[in-house]
Amino acid sequence: MYTIGIDLGGTNLRIGLFNEQGEIIEEHSRPTEAEKGPEYAVNNMTEVIDKLKTQYEIKAVGIGSPGPLNAFEGVIIEPPNLPGWVNIPLVNMLEEKIGLPVKLENDANAAALAEATLGAGKGASSVFFVTVSTGVGGGYVNNGQLVSGAQGNCGEIGNMIVNPDPNAYQGPGLNKGALEGLASGTAIGRIGQERLGITNGAQGVFQLAEQGDKAAQEILDEAINYLAIGLANIVHTVNPEVIVIGGGVMKSKDLILEPLIEKTKQYLYPSLRESFILKPALLDQKAGLIGAGLLPK
Amino acid sequence: MYTIGIDLGGTNLRIGLFNEQGEIIEEHSRPTEAEKGPEYAVNNMTEVIDKLKTQYEIKAVGIGSPGPLNAFEGVIIEPPNLPGWVNIPLVNMLEEKIGLPVKLENDANAAALAEATLGAGKGASSVFFVTVSTGVGGGYVNNGQLVSGAQGNCGEIGNMIVNPDPNAYQGPGLNKGALEGLASGTAIGRIGQERLGITNGAQGVFQLAEQGDKAAQEILDEAINYLAIGLANIVHTVNPEVIVIGGGVMKSKDLILEPLIEKTKQYLYPSLRESFILKPALLDQKAGLIGAGLLPK
Repeated sequence: MYTIGIDLGGTNLRIGLFNEQGEIIEEHSRPTEAEKGPEYAVNNMTEVIDKLKTQYEIKAVGIGSPGPLNAFEGVIIEPPNLPGWVNIPLVNMLEEKIGLPVKLENDANAAALAEATLGAGKGASSVFFVTVSTGVGGGYVNNGQLVSGAQGNCGEIGNMIVNPDPNAYQGPGLNKGALEGLASGTAIGRIGQERLGITNGAQGVFQLAEQGDKAAQEILDEAINYLAIGLANIVHTVNPEVIVIGGGVMKSKDLILEPLIEKTKQYLYPSLRESFILKPALLDQKAGLIGAGLLPK
Repeated sequence: MYTIGIDLGGTNLRIGLFNEQGEIIEEHSRPTEAEKGPEYAVNNMTEVIDKLKTQYEIKAVGIGSPGPLNAFEGVIIEPPNLPGWVNIPLVNMLEEKIGLPVKLENDANAAALAEATLGAGKGASSVFFVTVSTGVGGGYVNNGQLVSGAQGNCGEIGNMIVNPDPNAYQGPGLNKGALEGLASGTAIGRIGQERLGITNGAQGVFQLAEQGDKAAQEILDEAINYLAIGLANIVHTVNPEVIVIGGGVMKSKDLILEPLIEKTKQYLYPSLRESFILKPALLDQKAGLIGAGLLPK
């Protein structure tokens, strides 16, 4: 028995065929062309799946999609990365076409499941996955099970308040002083532009910091400090065995990982410092697709 | 088959006999007299349990104790409320005496299990319990199972940073700007003393606020704001179906509950505001004992 995982991104639609061990047997990729609407994407999915169905016995399909979405009703609500897709009953639409059960989760939750099951968190009893890229997101896997939360919003740590100062920055759709507004790649790039006139985003700040620029290093230190507060808050809330951190910003992990571990430990109860484990993600770009393939389990 | 629950408090040692529905059949209470040491307390427990064993078929024993403790090894580490009890292998000590399996959890986790199973969170798929009294603590129950966390520190939200300001208050053993230092009963009383010269703790602040005193109300508003940040952070981290709030400070729930609900909603993603449920605890003083009786399940 096989499953199919679909990583529905703003740019690409990736479809994978998985065996029972979660290994990718086949992989197909097409441009999402989100502007052509969900029917077009569903037809693309159906075409690939129908072909796979002639060769393999498929049990079910999992889809990882940008949020916000309603995982329980299988509805995509209004993701910034899929412009024009408003209240789309994606699960129903695809199930009608392919006659197989379909499960929808947000992409960070799917990636969390992948990292916990087959990636950096493999073997741990509980894993909190944190992704730092354009935004800050996450997902939580306890005893091998993805914890979706009552409204499917478990792991939405980008909106965690880490600075209640009335003058703290407020990003679009976020709380004032939210983690995502202060420590995402977007945030690092924005602050780099404000303070240093950098126009190539977080990457520019990392480059300058690598060259020893103090102002750029300070921007990173501030972001790392807020991330450390966020991670320590996660530890004191659910005490996962491992936190796995991924996302575009972690491409510069040489500049981030060690100081982030040290800073987070400072914010933990002393009894928790030795046992604190922060690991870089292993599956990178593949995590969303692999997690989608694991969703139907 | 019956279970025995023990609520090991700094003042009283309460022992309950529970049927399979978690109902209390018998209850015994003795002073803990912690200064006489753990052997004394274990002998007291043994006396009661041995008597109960002659009348009932007992399956196992659960103990809720003040932390810090190691739930997995059954060791009490060094609780401020049990002075002199340092690295006490309580589970082994009691098991040797009574010949029954014993399970140890911190008292907030035991109370969380009770509220989720038989109290204000009954019937919900996931419950986060928050207690605001001398300190701020909590516990998390997902799908009926207590989530202990990798080191048993799930729910230690008192140390969650809700204000990273370098001038934020730092309570003993806590992070600077931690929730417990800013919003516990102790914190409310301390600020009341600083600003208003009140010497009878949080109660004095509540009394003045009830009489319409603006400075006292401001102290409460600040504490409520930090609690709201803490609750919103919990929602964005694990999205529980229900948050149950208890503890001594909630005796004044008329002054706290509604403004806390309103403030927390402001800090949630708009899509989560309508579904946010905050309920006052139902089991009060009994939660720790009932939860201890449920631990062996």
